[in-house]
Amino acid sequence: VNLLELPTPALVIDADVLEYNLTAMARVHPGSSLRPHVKAHKCTALAALQREEGHHAFTCATPREVLGMVASGLGDDLLLANEVLDPARLRALAAAQDHARITVAVDSAHTVDAAAAAGIRAVLVDVNVGLPRCGCRPDEAGRIADLARRHGMEVRGVMGYEGHLMVLPDAEDQRNRVDDAMDRLLAAHELVGGPVVSAGGTGTYHLHRRVTEVQAGSYALMDSHYATLGHPFEQACHVYGTVISANPKFAVADVGLKALAMDHGNPTVETLDGQGTDVWFLSDEHVTFVPHTGVAEVGDRVRVGPAHIDPTMTMHEVAWLVRGHDVIDRWAIDLRGW
Amino acid sequence: VNLLELPTPALVIDADVLEYNLTAMARVHPGSSLRPHVKAHKCTALAALQREEGHHAFTCATPREVLGMVASGLGDDLLLANEVLDPARLRALAAAQDHARITVAVDSAHTVDAAAAAGIRAVLVDVNVGLPRCGCRPDEAGRIADLARRHGMEVRGVMGYEGHLMVLPDAEDQRNRVDDAMDRLLAAHELVGGPVVSAGGTGTYHLHRRVTEVQAGSYALMDSHYATLGHPFEQACHVYGTVISANPKFAVADVGLKALAMDHGNPTVETLDGQGTDVWFLSDEHVTFVPHTGVAEVGDRVRVGPAHIDPTMTMHEVAWLVRGHDVIDRWAIDLRGW
Repeated sequence: VNLLELPTPALVIDADVLEYNLTAMARVHPGSSLRPHVKAHKCTALAALQREEGHHAFTCATPREVLGMVASGLGDDLLLANEVLDPARLRALAAAQDHARITVAVDSAHTVDAAAAAGIRAVLVDVNVGLPRCGCRPDEAGRIADLARRHGMEVRGVMGYEGHLMVLPDAEDQRNRVDDAMDRLLAAHELVGGPVVSAGGTGTYHLHRRVTEVQAGSYALMDSHYATLGHPFEQACHVYGTVISANPKFAVADVGLKALAMDHGNPTVETLDGQGTDVWFLSDEHVTFVPHTGVAEVGDRVRVGPAHIDPTMTMHEVAWLVRGHDVIDRWAIDLRGW
Repeated sequence: VNLLELPTPALVIDADVLEYNLTAMARVHPGSSLRPHVKAHKCTALAALQREEGHHAFTCATPREVLGMVASGLGDDLLLANEVLDPARLRALAAAQDHARITVAVDSAHTVDAAAAAGIRAVLVDVNVGLPRCGCRPDEAGRIADLARRHGMEVRGVMGYEGHLMVLPDAEDQRNRVDDAMDRLLAAHELVGGPVVSAGGTGTYHLHRRVTEVQAGSYALMDSHYATLGHPFEQACHVYGTVISANPKFAVADVGLKALAMDHGNPTVETLDGQGTDVWFLSDEHVTFVPHTGVAEVGDRVRVGPAHIDPTMTMHEVAWLVRGHDVIDRWAIDLRGW
């Protein structure tokens, strides 16, 4: 099948670019020094490529992601890097421990107790390193680890996500602030112990020397937001659309805000000869745009670049893997949901 | 099951509020004068309630929505109010014509030819009434209708969506501009003929006297954006979440931007005792917020009100129907995709 025959909107992954990104990251963080985050693609077929690249441990954001990875035989070492209280989902994770190594993040007595009650065997203490989200204070981390150990659980170490530092204009400032955040994480680690110190993301992957593993995910597919940062990764994933209505003033393609995420703003839209466009607005099933030169014709294809890849992936059932214009595989986006 | 025992994030529809909204709209536009838009909820169970309310004709935005409605026995009169060129999907719609009445919007010779080639029997001419999106110029509508008739297709009339006028601050200005838009639509109708003149949406439902049917959809569930407009419909749908991390400064619940649409901005977050909060930001699986009074505790439930309901529905597999705190039904969101 040719790329241009796919029904649209079509989520399309360029195999060459994906492989380039995977290799570029593996050169900096080979093997177990990278714990790829599957929330960024929600696709076990892509995770399998990351394992072929040498990474056997993965990061997940939801129980469904963990269980899907286990079902696909990718359960060597799965970290649920998020707090969960739901007893049913925690029990499902506990049941999967016979087939996989599963570690759950905890940041409070509540989350420790919930994990223990469900039969979870291993936890990581989630430490707040400056992002106002989950994670305990560094000085609380030892108490939480002690509580987990009293419940009989293995405490594998600490994690801390410096999400507020992923995108900063000044490189030196970013380096210093990531260092400060890691000071907090390592202070917590002194109180917690264990072999794992996990942190980072695509925006800071190059700044980590003092952790045992980096949790980057977006590097594999990238998006128009991360693409502006100058990292050596390229956009591997676009949503292809068809021009369904056109006139001399503007054109309309069938890629709307139900086919890509808008939290980071409008996507880019290009014609297939590489011409840029001005994007006017998106509605549920449409994007209205103006090509920079020439006019669009009904039936033309366009390539739409999402501004935020992670939530875009969750909107699609399948991704089409292409090499050039040849469709070489159909990947289920099989880790959606919670 | 009690509402507070649902696994979160949980898409929850309040049956009393939904019924109130359906009845309020049916009083203004009873029976065939309303053609509810299913893109707003993507749920055949909800569409079945709209039919019980007296509306037998529905509007759809995607072939999948049309085919799902047919499969659920709701195919009395389905309008695909969007342009489609994909031959395979058009053929699937044509095949469904033996079990349902299906009408497809066209706005160009290309779309007429594609519909005819697939065996579509009935079309509606989509007219641009000011929104820069699909629709032909009013003076082109007759030519497009003639082309469709030459192909042997029934031309049922015209449609035009004044989406740019849904939300205007001044009521008199809105009324005048909707009138101007309908002048354009009726001018096109003079050239096209046919019994149907279809237009409108939740933001202008009260301003239509000259059309045969109104296409509103959001009125059934509403959202925090439409809720500010003073219409007699209330928010029937929220995403319930659980506080998974909390401290004296802020709290974090498990409703992120993969569980609701962000194109209209941040959602509202309320505690279950009705207390408001300041929403700081959302990430993939989290919302960080500060309750106006008191502090949140880990395990507390929160009620999150999406700013845009249509794309929020597409992010969930199921909605839970509740009356008070009792969960009375589980509805599949079964019209997702294209």
